[in-house]
Amino acid sequence: MTPKEPTARIRKSPEQVRSAVHQAVIDLLSDPDGGEPTIPAIAQRAGVNHTVVYRRWGSREALLADLVATRLERDWPLNDTGSLRGDLTAWARAGVASIRTLEGRLLIRAVALSMPSSAQAQGDRAEHFQRRFDSIERIRERATARGERPPAMEQILDQLVAPLYLRAIFGIEPPADGYPELLVTRLLGTQGAPDTAGPAGPA
Amino acid sequence: MTPKEPTARIRKSPEQVRSAVHQAVIDLLSDPDGGEPTIPAIAQRAGVNHTVVYRRWGSREALLADLVATRLERDWPLNDTGSLRGDLTAWARAGVASIRTLEGRLLIRAVALSMPSSAQAQGDRAEHFQRRFDSIERIRERATARGERPPAMEQILDQLVAPLYLRAIFGIEPPADGYPELLVTRLLGTQGAPDTAGPAGPA
Repeated sequence: MTPKEPTARIRKSPEQVRSAVHQAVIDLLSDPDGGEPTIPAIAQRAGVNHTVVYRRWGSREALLADLVATRLERDWPLNDTGSLRGDLTAWARAGVASIRTLEGRLLIRAVALSMPSSAQAQGDRAEHFQRRFDSIERIRERATARGERPPAMEQILDQLVAPLYLRAIFGIEPPADGYPELLVTRLLGTQGAPDTAGPAGPA
Repeated sequence: MTPKEPTARIRKSPEQVRSAVHQAVIDLLSDPDGGEPTIPAIAQRAGVNHTVVYRRWGSREALLADLVATRLERDWPLNDTGSLRGDLTAWARAGVASIRTLEGRLLIRAVALSMPSSAQAQGDRAEHFQRRFDSIERIRERATARGERPPAMEQILDQLVAPLYLRAIFGIEPPADGYPELLVTRLLGTQGAPDTAGPAGPA
């Protein structure tokens, strides 16, 4: 399995390799006949040697985590809208727009697929969630700096992240109109007015 | 690949085959070195011929859907507690207890894995969700018969099912105490008092 002779393939820059490999995963996941996105299958589709993929990412899980982090960060940007409600609504709108696309659903699904069943590779899982949490943590910090009282992270996970991820993974269409606003209203509504303490978050 | 000679294996009854195959899936999903739960791998682990598995279930997706439906129905029973809040809390408690176990998380994860990326095999997905929805639909119907006003199915999905499924898929521990009650309070709280109309559900 070690490459013995120089390949006839055109050499790609590291960034081109990364982009081609990421796209190959998306293509394989999108293709009903694409089969499991194993590293050999991904490498073949990307037109790179599978040893390059193993060297760069180490495992399929790490590759999926990298792909998801890159694309989700690109697709779900986090602007400061001037209020907690505005920031959360912008996040939810970006999320809903993303999961309305096949690629967006596939990305979330790739996160789920990249989660090890066992305790193995907890690092990848932790890293992905840390990134997601970082984004939301920034929204929370901005709110606190404005004197607003943001909901606990666990509550945002339950009421904003979970519905979007579940719909992406199971292919359940989000309601047609006002869904991001509905989720945010439920989240902030159950948490009380901005100046009153919300229910205690989980420890 | 057609079996040419009688196998030396002890013959199993259909129910024994089903049970052994279900357990083999759980074992493979639990084993860090178990690899992908392909039908040949499942059959080998269960000690049955893979043609038996193909004949009975047709596809890995159908097998996973059958496993999940069987175990989840067994683990998440639906008793009539006499009130909507009681029924939903019982459902949530069973769900939380289930996702605290590795097998429970693996079952939910198996549902996610069994979901095709593409439009392929939408039937399996629909069937699983129909079953989940059937259970919750029965809770809703009992509530209506009592004169209670249950939340819309979509809202229950977002606020009760999604947090549990997300935590199962990503291995995020539920908060230690009072989590089922918290989820139900958020769900019914945001829906208004039992005798007032809740916010319009999605069309």
